[in-house]
Amino acid sequence: MNENPLHLLMNPKSIAVVGANNSIVKMGTVMALNILKQGYQGKFFPIHPKEKEILGFKAYPSVEALPEVPDLAMLIVPAKEVASILERFGKIGTRSAIVITAGFKETGKKGRDMEKEIGETASRYGIRFVGPNCMGIINSQIALNTTVLPMVKEPGSLGFASQSGTFVSQVLPYLRKRGIRFSKAVSLGNEASINVVDALEYLGEDEQTKAIILYIEGIREGERFLEVARRITPHKPILAQYVGGSSSGARASLSHTGAMTGPDFLYDGLFKQAGIIRVYSIEDLYSHGWTLATQPPMRGNRVGVITNSGGPSSTIAYTSDSVGLQVPRFSDGLQKEIRKFIEPYASAANPIDLTFDLRMENLTVTLPELIMKSGEVDAIVLHGVMMTGYMREVYPHFKEMAGNISLEEFLKLSLPIVPGALELPHKYKMPMLISTFFDWEDNYTTGYRDTNTPIFYCPEDTARALGSLYRYTKIKERRPFSKINLPTTNGLASSLIKKAKTNGQKALDEYAAKKLLASYGVMVTKEELATTMEEALAAAAKIGYPVAMKACSWEIMHKSGKGLIALNVENEAGLKTEFQNIQKNAGRKEPVLIQEMLKGNREFMAGMTRFAGFGPCVIFGLGGIFTEVYNDTTLRLAPLGNADVQEMFSDIRANKLLGEFRGMPKVATDKLFQIIQAVGNVALLHPEIAEIDLNPIIINGAEPVIADALIVLEDNTKP
Amino acid sequence: MNENPLHLLMNPKSIAVVGANNSIVKMGTVMALNILKQGYQGKFFPIHPKEKEILGFKAYPSVEALPEVPDLAMLIVPAKEVASILERFGKIGTRSAIVITAGFKETGKKGRDMEKEIGETASRYGIRFVGPNCMGIINSQIALNTTVLPMVKEPGSLGFASQSGTFVSQVLPYLRKRGIRFSKAVSLGNEASINVVDALEYLGEDEQTKAIILYIEGIREGERFLEVARRITPHKPILAQYVGGSSSGARASLSHTGAMTGPDFLYDGLFKQAGIIRVYSIEDLYSHGWTLATQPPMRGNRVGVITNSGGPSSTIAYTSDSVGLQVPRFSDGLQKEIRKFIEPYASAANPIDLTFDLRMENLTVTLPELIMKSGEVDAIVLHGVMMTGYMREVYPHFKEMAGNISLEEFLKLSLPIVPGALELPHKYKMPMLISTFFDWEDNYTTGYRDTNTPIFYCPEDTARALGSLYRYTKIKERRPFSKINLPTTNGLASSLIKKAKTNGQKALDEYAAKKLLASYGVMVTKEELATTMEEALAAAAKIGYPVAMKACSWEIMHKSGKGLIALNVENEAGLKTEFQNIQKNAGRKEPVLIQEMLKGNREFMAGMTRFAGFGPCVIFGLGGIFTEVYNDTTLRLAPLGNADVQEMFSDIRANKLLGEFRGMPKVATDKLFQIIQAVGNVALLHPEIAEIDLNPIIINGAEPVIADALIVLEDNTKP
Repeated sequence: MNENPLHLLMNPKSIAVVGANNSIVKMGTVMALNILKQGYQGKFFPIHPKEKEILGFKAYPSVEALPEVPDLAMLIVPAKEVASILERFGKIGTRSAIVITAGFKETGKKGRDMEKEIGETASRYGIRFVGPNCMGIINSQIALNTTVLPMVKEPGSLGFASQSGTFVSQVLPYLRKRGIRFSKAVSLGNEASINVVDALEYLGEDEQTKAIILYIEGIREGERFLEVARRITPHKPILAQYVGGSSSGARASLSHTGAMTGPDFLYDGLFKQAGIIRVYSIEDLYSHGWTLATQPPMRGNRVGVITNSGGPSSTIAYTSDSVGLQVPRFSDGLQKEIRKFIEPYASAANPIDLTFDLRMENLTVTLPELIMKSGEVDAIVLHGVMMTGYMREVYPHFKEMAGNISLEEFLKLSLPIVPGALELPHKYKMPMLISTFFDWEDNYTTGYRDTNTPIFYCPEDTARALGSLYRYTKIKERRPFSKINLPTTNGLASSLIKKAKTNGQKALDEYAAKKLLASYGVMVTKEELATTMEEALAAAAKIGYPVAMKACSWEIMHKSGKGLIALNVENEAGLKTEFQNIQKNAGRKEPVLIQEMLKGNREFMAGMTRFAGFGPCVIFGLGGIFTEVYNDTTLRLAPLGNADVQEMFSDIRANKLLGEFRGMPKVATDKLFQIIQAVGNVALLHPEIAEIDLNPIIINGAEPVIADALIVLEDNTKP
Repeated sequence: MNENPLHLLMNPKSIAVVGANNSIVKMGTVMALNILKQGYQGKFFPIHPKEKEILGFKAYPSVEALPEVPDLAMLIVPAKEVASILERFGKIGTRSAIVITAGFKETGKKGRDMEKEIGETASRYGIRFVGPNCMGIINSQIALNTTVLPMVKEPGSLGFASQSGTFVSQVLPYLRKRGIRFSKAVSLGNEASINVVDALEYLGEDEQTKAIILYIEGIREGERFLEVARRITPHKPILAQYVGGSSSGARASLSHTGAMTGPDFLYDGLFKQAGIIRVYSIEDLYSHGWTLATQPPMRGNRVGVITNSGGPSSTIAYTSDSVGLQVPRFSDGLQKEIRKFIEPYASAANPIDLTFDLRMENLTVTLPELIMKSGEVDAIVLHGVMMTGYMREVYPHFKEMAGNISLEEFLKLSLPIVPGALELPHKYKMPMLISTFFDWEDNYTTGYRDTNTPIFYCPEDTARALGSLYRYTKIKERRPFSKINLPTTNGLASSLIKKAKTNGQKALDEYAAKKLLASYGVMVTKEELATTMEEALAAAAKIGYPVAMKACSWEIMHKSGKGLIALNVENEAGLKTEFQNIQKNAGRKEPVLIQEMLKGNREFMAGMTRFAGFGPCVIFGLGGIFTEVYNDTTLRLAPLGNADVQEMFSDIRANKLLGEFRGMPKVATDKLFQIIQAVGNVALLHPEIAEIDLNPIIINGAEPVIADALIVLEDNTKP
């Protein structure tokens, strides 16, 4: 395995910057100042054609004039100059770069060509770079921050790979207020050299990083992404936001970083398969990520809620239920213990509602400790801790009563933080989150924040963050992924495809499609192809009435509603009539498929489709007429293991139908697994296949049987 | 119509407070201070047995000693004293009260009894009161705030009825920071006298209130709530959060305000029927409410997004799509205009991404104005407006370069707010929201905030708030509700119920249930009841084969899987066999229902159930075996108008099935409407009916026919 390029890039002993000067309105200068003022201890070499000194450092007139080869080159220069400057760094031996400059792929054809050029130049010299069109990097371990805004100085534990520069830079003041601190962060820009998969891999290996968050507009290496993420998620959580899956989102992303997006359900399936927790807002990405980076695992799904007010109790309880957690009623014994510390009218059952009270001992130490020790919950939420924030608020009203004392004097009357309060969650190694309407003007809020207890300004958000924490517990419990061995290519399958291609077909006909599938060992309907009435009668006699009859031609991809199908044909007379009808409706002599008529009220579907940047993707879901009504499907990348397919089974909303249901037996899911796996394998073994659609797969008794099959071939006539 | 009690209570010319003293740790004192310091101009009478003066005001030793009859009495006294103090106020003629005291219904039996007592005492004297167990009221119009925390002084336009005191009081500092200001707010507590429906009605009538938000843990007057809300929503938006619908939420709510909760789908249906926008967090309740209170209507669903960074562009676009909005590509003409003002590599298509730039003219005036004038969007989101917030952030880095100037001097270098920026959205009467990672340390953020342009700290939240704004546009477009006239009670129906009750039945048998329904004009299967084989054969001959056969007894409520049903019976021989089988499986002689065998792949269901505090509720959804798989149902309160049922049709996810579908004709929805409406009418006309379950309703061709029916009677043997 090659070393990840970010190991070198993120840890430079020296940095050369091209594009900074002494004007504070220039972005290059702002970034250079960020490098210099945040505590970075490496060497700093500004390059400038005219200035002798930049920001107090000796400036060099050219790359060649540098006193030594810098580990990292950072370029904030016009787009057309990037390639030649990269080349000069390449020549002197620099191997890492950050290209901040925008105006490449995201702007159209000309930009794409320029981007290709800088990629090729870099490759020539073995340079790996971040960008172009990015905000650079943050490595809090060496106090390095190349973005436009200062970061908090204390190193953090949250790793971030972002396809948006804003979410690494403009957001830093917001993150500081919430106490969220990066270990490492990379603004990836257009990914001409280093991409999101490289960054993910790097963060997975980075010991400082305890949880990884990804902001994604498009992934170009789908299979490698899956492979890398699958290696990481068993021991380190990954959360991701994906925004390329809607039409507006896709257009915005294209013009943002030139990202090639894919449909939402593709990324949804990819994330599920990789064990990645998906979130839907940047706020959740940071705050759930921070929760996972700082909190110990949640062993079960039980939440204890302690508040000084009823509204947050109810909203946290409701939201906990909605994300798969529970707020269990405490045991009588525990309630009795709790009762000693609360007002007689307050609730001890969970949530505990102390009602408004400014003495914080009970809320912050006595009760949480009692509950942590009880073993009755797996995480705790506190709402309503407050002291100086509250005092500040009421000061204008109390000022006069208190002899017109100053705010400072008044705040001195605040009770100090209860000893042990901030240390408590760490002492018992139990996740704890804080919900508050006060913020960093309050000593408790800042106290918890600065000791790695996440703060939320909306009570419901605590429950949602715990939902992600518990999701990760379930992800860690997944069976480990093991390599899947593909079967050998079946000769019959290859020849069926070859024959169809030779004939100029764009698809296999149903009969051939099923033969191909059957050659990989899955169950299809018993059927025979009849070109004459006599053959049809013979076939039906052999299969047994009732039969289904279908016109069979690769050119008829969707048969329903055209009079080309007859179901439940009961006898010879019926067969004769329908044979003629089908021939008539087809408008020409077509072979007719005579098929056993399956009985079964449960119908599923399986399919395969390909997306740019991804291998074959397998789709499974509810089939039959409800396919398009509920769109109840799930997707995974091939090849599929048993664990993948088991998760597909539980993904679909109609999963009840797989078990015993209304007098019907449990579905033979091992056979259904074989079908779904075969779809992926066939696609991998036969790259000439563009699409597969098996719908319906009828559950005949307990046995899944493929009742209709469509296999579309790659269109080689397209450019 | 009686005058709403809150008209009087919210506008007192004088307030007497029992329970305040001169100690600032006492809640009564904190509340009294809030009344005195927020600018309330009415009279203030503290009552105290010993003190001569409280907070600088003359104190009176008793209610009777007051110099005049106060308009409003406020009680913060021990629970057991409330009734007698209320009585004394009643005797002197006070007619409004606020009971802050907790420890009533929410604590159990003893508290319930005490609460009943105070309710009765108040009634005796015509007193209406808010509480007990509440935080009182806010009326910003007269600067009255009885809660424990100060509010912002400027009157607002958001009305709030809350079943949580915290959400009216503890939250005030948070709301101030976000610029969200109440017109009126009521903390309802246990609702022993004035309830959430009274408060809703009051806010609906209040001219200062432009949008209403409700925090709900349980409603006791479901039908009145619907009636009142329906009057309001055509001209004033209502948003609601409901948290009683989960098991933990219900328990939390019970111990909080003793609220009687109902299932989530009940409230969901109620809100939809009333035209109330449901939200799922208190943050959304405030911020979406504030958006609706301050922004003009959104005429269509088109959003223009202008940012200085690509990440927020993409997330806002994605989220817009997900809430039913669109971010349309601007016309070529408009893009050409926009191009004049942006960097060549920036996107002009929508979202517009200016990329990082500190000159705010383009972002805050030039481009939004261009777009507002274009008529190509219905609302605008700006992300990235910033000046002093940014300057503060970078000051530590720039300080030295700028000759060690002070922060104050440095901030003076900031460009002033661009003239016209803050006024722009009001000038064009177009909704505009701001997304920012800076907050009230930034002059733009505070500037917009203080001129009623809502601020969001998470870009996606702007799109979600616009989603609610657009929802309200659609709600206003609803057909107005018109009173529904019930049919007259059908004599046959009454006699069927009477007969069943006389027989001691807990339900009607299927045959009788269908007769009852048919008597109200809806279509049921053709069927005859047979007690002998001969009758069965004759019935089948009359109806025509194939037939369905079912054991018919009120005691067999769920027949499937017990051998009591035979479908598709083809001929006499089959009928004979099945008749014997059914008799055998029933274990005794049961009448057998001989039914026409309906053909149809589409099955729906309709039903009725009752919940405490609500009238009959009608449920409609997908029927047949998928009922329990997808749980795809929707609920409304009876009686149902055509508009209600049309909305039920569009509510269900399977609504495609109602149209032309896979060669099947469009469902005769007028007839389906009749069935659903009849379910509600029958429940209203026959209160002896506890439950109705019609499943399946088979679509036979285009016609809906009730194929199975269960009518359960009220169990009068229960206490």
